[in-house]
Amino acid sequence: MVSTTSLLDFFLETRNYSETLCKPLKTEDYVVQPIVDVSPPKWHLGHTTWFFEDFILKKHKPGYQEYNKQYAFVFNSYYESMGARVVRTDRGNLSRPTVDEIYAYRKYVTAELRELLSDSDTISSELEKLVEIGIHHEKQHQELLLTDIKYILGNNPLLPAYAESYQENTADQENTQWISIEEGVYEIGHQGEGFCYDNELSRHKVYLHDFKISSSLVSNAEYLQFIEAGGYEDALLWHSEGWAWVNENQIKAPQYWHLEDGEWMNYTLAGYKKLNLETPVTHISYYEAFAYAQWRGLRLPTEFEWEVAQEHFNWGQRWEWTESAYLPYPGYEKEPGALGEYNGKFMVSQKTLRGGSTATSPNHTRATYRNFFHPHLRWQFTGIRLAE
Amino acid sequence: MVSTTSLLDFFLETRNYSETLCKPLKTEDYVVQPIVDVSPPKWHLGHTTWFFEDFILKKHKPGYQEYNKQYAFVFNSYYESMGARVVRTDRGNLSRPTVDEIYAYRKYVTAELRELLSDSDTISSELEKLVEIGIHHEKQHQELLLTDIKYILGNNPLLPAYAESYQENTADQENTQWISIEEGVYEIGHQGEGFCYDNELSRHKVYLHDFKISSSLVSNAEYLQFIEAGGYEDALLWHSEGWAWVNENQIKAPQYWHLEDGEWMNYTLAGYKKLNLETPVTHISYYEAFAYAQWRGLRLPTEFEWEVAQEHFNWGQRWEWTESAYLPYPGYEKEPGALGEYNGKFMVSQKTLRGGSTATSPNHTRATYRNFFHPHLRWQFTGIRLAE
Amino acid sequence: MVSTTSLLDFFLETRNYSETLCKPLKTEDYVVQPIVDVSPPKWHLGHTTWFFEDFILKKHKPGYQEYNKQYAFVFNSYYESMGARVVRTDRGNLSRPTVDEIYAYRKYVTAELRELLSDSDTISSELEKLVEIGIHHEKQHQELLLTDIKYILGNNPLLPAYAESYQENTADQENTQWISIEEGVYEIGHQGEGFCYDNELSRHKVYLHDFKISSSLVSNAEYLQFIEAGGYEDALLWHSEGWAWVNENQIKAPQYWHLEDGEWMNYTLAGYKKLNLETPVTHISYYEAFAYAQWRGLRLPTEFEWEVAQEHFNWGQRWEWTESAYLPYPGYEKEPGALGEYNGKFMVSQKTLRGGSTATSPNHTRATYRNFFHPHLRWQFTGIRLAE
Amino acid sequence: MVSTTSLLDFFLETRNYSETLCKPLKTEDYVVQPIVDVSPPKWHLGHTTWFFEDFILKKHKPGYQEYNKQYAFVFNSYYESMGARVVRTDRGNLSRPTVDEIYAYRKYVTAELRELLSDSDTISSELEKLVEIGIHHEKQHQELLLTDIKYILGNNPLLPAYAESYQENTADQENTQWISIEEGVYEIGHQGEGFCYDNELSRHKVYLHDFKISSSLVSNAEYLQFIEAGGYEDALLWHSEGWAWVNENQIKAPQYWHLEDGEWMNYTLAGYKKLNLETPVTHISYYEAFAYAQWRGLRLPTEFEWEVAQEHFNWGQRWEWTESAYLPYPGYEKEPGALGEYNGKFMVSQKTLRGGSTATSPNHTRATYRNFFHPHLRWQFTGIRLAE
Repeated sequence: MVSTTSLLDFFLETRNYSETLCKPLKTEDYVVQPIVDVSPPKWHLGHTTWFFEDFILKKHKPGYQEYNKQYAFVFNSYYESMGARVVRTDRGNLSRPTVDEIYAYRKYVTAELRELLSDSDTISSELEKLVEIGIHHEKQHQELLLTDIKYILGNNPLLPAYAESYQENTADQENTQWISIEEGVYEIGHQGEGFCYDNELSRHKVYLHDFKISSSLVSNAEYLQFIEAGGYEDALLWHSEGWAWVNENQIKAPQYWHLEDGEWMNYTLAGYKKLNLETPVTHISYYEAFAYAQWRGLRLPTEFEWEVAQEHFNWGQRWEWTESAYLPYPGYEKEPGALGEYNGKFMVSQKTLRGGSTATSPNHTRATYRNFFHPHLRWQFTGIRLAE
Repeated sequence: MVSTTSLLDFFLETRNYSETLCKPLKTEDYVVQPIVDVSPPKWHLGHTTWFFEDFILKKHKPGYQEYNKQYAFVFNSYYESMGARVVRTDRGNLSRPTVDEIYAYRKYVTAELRELLSDSDTISSELEKLVEIGIHHEKQHQELLLTDIKYILGNNPLLPAYAESYQENTADQENTQWISIEEGVYEIGHQGEGFCYDNELSRHKVYLHDFKISSSLVSNAEYLQFIEAGGYEDALLWHSEGWAWVNENQIKAPQYWHLEDGEWMNYTLAGYKKLNLETPVTHISYYEAFAYAQWRGLRLPTEFEWEVAQEHFNWGQRWEWTESAYLPYPGYEKEPGALGEYNGKFMVSQKTLRGGSTATSPNHTRATYRNFFHPHLRWQFTGIRLAE
Repeated sequence: MVSTTSLLDFFLETRNYSETLCKPLKTEDYVVQPIVDVSPPKWHLGHTTWFFEDFILKKHKPGYQEYNKQYAFVFNSYYESMGARVVRTDRGNLSRPTVDEIYAYRKYVTAELRELLSDSDTISSELEKLVEIGIHHEKQHQELLLTDIKYILGNNPLLPAYAESYQENTADQENTQWISIEEGVYEIGHQGEGFCYDNELSRHKVYLHDFKISSSLVSNAEYLQFIEAGGYEDALLWHSEGWAWVNENQIKAPQYWHLEDGEWMNYTLAGYKKLNLETPVTHISYYEAFAYAQWRGLRLPTEFEWEVAQEHFNWGQRWEWTESAYLPYPGYEKEPGALGEYNGKFMVSQKTLRGGSTATSPNHTRATYRNFFHPHLRWQFTGIRLAE
Repeated sequence: MVSTTSLLDFFLETRNYSETLCKPLKTEDYVVQPIVDVSPPKWHLGHTTWFFEDFILKKHKPGYQEYNKQYAFVFNSYYESMGARVVRTDRGNLSRPTVDEIYAYRKYVTAELRELLSDSDTISSELEKLVEIGIHHEKQHQELLLTDIKYILGNNPLLPAYAESYQENTADQENTQWISIEEGVYEIGHQGEGFCYDNELSRHKVYLHDFKISSSLVSNAEYLQFIEAGGYEDALLWHSEGWAWVNENQIKAPQYWHLEDGEWMNYTLAGYKKLNLETPVTHISYYEAFAYAQWRGLRLPTEFEWEVAQEHFNWGQRWEWTESAYLPYPGYEKEPGALGEYNGKFMVSQKTLRGGSTATSPNHTRATYRNFFHPHLRWQFTGIRLAE
């Protein structure tokens, strides 16, 4: 448990924060799903609630009354056949339950958990662990809420701002320095009492060769040089499947960049603006991160290099693509049952990202945290740190 | 012009009716697009408004101020590139403009037209014709509004009713009689002063051989016999491409029918109900209408047979699939300019439907009216009338 | 029956002609299937043979020994599951049976039929009719053989000729004249004793309005003017789905035309040549035929107009797209059983073509013959005749 | 260089072996391409020849006359536009050049190289290295030749044998033993003078934790137990994308297995046979290898574990899926120029396989050799070795 707050407070604060994030939305913004990777905000609000109901309340609160049996079907992430009735369940097609109905569902489930967690004598360590997972599950969805909202508004022809005061960058990039790490055996993975996901275990040894890593992220100005030097037209810089992706999707710049009358514009959560050259480049795929590094004659760090070196630089503005594939650590064991599906079943064909981003919820990420996405995805606040 | 009402009244009544149809909707229902054939209700409300603004106000009202330049892009039916900004414009992905913003747009455009039409001295015959087209265009979208709402709600796992009082059938089917029409030369197509579309012209002669046509539509009870006799499993009853469609889409019954625990249930605008056996079958594709007729040893009428025979039976509950392809009449001339794209460019690969449906707006259809859809589509209130 | 030759001679001559057509091929040319509409030549040779075996020998020749049970599966046009063994059956993936094996199969079946047909006393009228259908079926495949060979060689980077002496055009176009036909009732469809397909029946009356039809086909020179005038870039000339087809497939000219260094080249069965401007344009889709006619301010004839007018002009060089959809005639009755699937099940979403082409086999087509293809297809020797 | 033979002999022996492998083929077998992963045998024969011509003869043999300029286009692995002529270049659609023409091309290029390599004084070390790469490139294609031929014949409804004497298994599986390897730092990657690919370098250190690895491969009998225990129906055993693959492709057993009348049959290069239970399971995807290991409560080894342990067991019958992703080693450097595209550009989204297979050419593989395929592919002779 996070030490400075009680489990109940941590729970309530988290529940509340999801709703705070949605304050700037119009009802219509809660509903749409422009691409399969993006979920409608109302689905995030319902799904995180269903998670608490299904894994905790139904099993651990005596006499709990399920809110609505059909919600399990709507808010489960897994789409199995509903049986006799043949209906569509793509998230972006569901106008019902309405946003108001989902807020009522949240209120009900939050109140039930508040009741369950009020008496600390009845909180078993199993229950505590489940609640912690539920909280961190909702925190993960908070980041997705923001990135999905950005996609929804940033691909609308009217390009409306989410919140004009929103700062996508919380720190200027310091002057770049190369940090040297010496060859040797290092320990990797979570240790200690605090919460972590199963994919951060077990702590184990790796051998690293000498390497250098940059203290700063690649900036928009630096990335623009790559574009202007023809980086998107030079097949030799790209992986074979990255090159196919560039050509099929006519990729010419990071997501949300638009070249209007010779000037680079950028959609941010604060609205449609002139591109800020000083801030770290974001919304680039792994393919682009790799090609950029190739062009510079450098490379991306592995996730092990990153974890060993990270105490020497600031991180947290961008999810940093690593060269590592997302694979199990030695001694990895899945949680038993349905929770075991949380991480392990995605351990193929994805790349690991390290750090955290401007959209990551407070008290969520850490130095051993492993995020993962397919190499073509760009709608998260991804970024590039170079190594050599 | 419809003789019993002024152009302005007809216009205002039509504008008002679109909004009345949407009264039972939640905001979220206005937004989604589950399949490409269905448009979000808010798009229908905006598109019909844009039609009046673009074809009439901009050209015929001196000093007219365009409401919002970007709306032309959002509500045009044609998706061309927006130029420098690369954004998605699939209707179902657009949360903005909001429903409230669209109602404000409607109000503005309606008021401007009211002003334009208030002084009958300034209404040229060209303007009158354009307004009539705009009114009938909106009436067509009113029918689509209802069928699209039905699709949106009827494919939601919660199966909410649109309006519990909604009657999908306005008349019982009388006892079936076979009406005989004699061989000879007949005239087809619109004549007289009233409004018609260009595809109903020119009036021309056709030669019909002796035929009989049923006075009633095929009922759910009759169609159920086809299902129970294995109609969906007998390739010989189907067109080659119909059979492929049945198998690829696992079609086993009309749309909105569900077999639950051995009982046939049916989603209607009034909610999810036991199937009413007495009412005319609906939501079937042309392929199904054809296969049903084959199974009965009968056939569908041509659109010419239908038009000649129609005064001998009641019609208007279902759009009746005909055996005819949707093709130009002899002497057909497209309207000049953009309005010319209204009908002519669809005259390939579609089937003609005749009559009208329970969802057709008042004062819209007539005996010479030609509706058209691709042969696989089922979300309209389609039906079957047999001939031999 | 064709009167000037016996059934057996007609049969043997037809069988022989298929093999003559394949004489210029290399073994490899028999095997490939570049697009789904094209079949490998060896498949045509096997399929036409299987047709005689399955519909005639097995049922009508006492003691007939099936050549190879598995061939029924390979050469049937219908791909059903083979049961326990899961294998691919796309025609272009099958290297076996080899070309030699198929010629052996042809020899065997031809010899069996020769024996069956040698004794005219044993030829029932049912058998005679089946043999006639088998012969005309093979003649249809002879035309496909040539067009499929053209596609196979004409899409190979080496652009090899089929036969340098092959003449794709057997007659120069005369000077164009407009033939006028008077309004009235006309009879359409086959009559008399000779062979026809079921889709040419029953003979029936149609009412035609006054029309004019061109005595000649549109030439390459004329079509080139359409290209140079920007016909492929003007959306208003095209059907909606035709325009989508042009854009998705980047269509800029008829199939087999290539613009090399500013000069129009053309692949013909005689090889890759400078475009001959005098010959009738060919390998155009219905969409292109329609758009060309629109651009000229004219239209395509209906199939009824064509049939009535055809005795006033030469035809047979190009399959002429008509404005008519391929639909059943009044009183149309399918053949019973599997032969009934020959024509009727394709009577939706296709256009009728009339006449015949340079690739049509001798003694095959006639004035009432109805060919049919989907509107986007171009690999047949299609052409354009205008009406107004 | 392999020490026991001269470069020229090694070259000639390799060239000859490709042709020996094709001896059992019919001409038609050389032509088809049933799936995109499989290439037509004639393409392999031409492409390996083009490689020698393009990378060696054109640059290193004074006065070399290119055999046919168009062959570069046909036999290059990269499909760029041919410029003015728009033609299809999918390998399986090309009937020309014919098999005979390709053998003539081989003969010409082999003779030219024989001449070039005959005078050892003129063989620079750069040339020697290029010839070695060309030889190993052809050896890789020899394995593909066999697996592609197996796919072509094994998916033909006639299921013809490639060669009845072909033995897919060269050794019985010994009794399984668990080999234990101790924790520590190990060296990985190629060292010494012999040939290796760039992806085997640089030799570097890794830290391995204690592990055990099986001395034998999983047999058909063992895999059958997994099938019979419902392994293909239990989502919990599979990666998320593996489960989707199983369901979309209706996978129920390894490729080439057929359940006929309750008996498991197996297509092998020696023909269609009763399944041999004793031999190592093959033609399984990484997804299946992983799910099988999960079901056993075990796991796949990493490629580093495999390389360290490999001297304690026999290998070479099956390409063994590892848990490792195919990624660059520390200090990896691509070859400059076009040869640099050989390996590096595939280092994303693929899994490493180690060992070699019954189809691997002699003198080709080694303990540090890294093969790689996408996780869903099964047409290679893949297999499973377990670790824990």
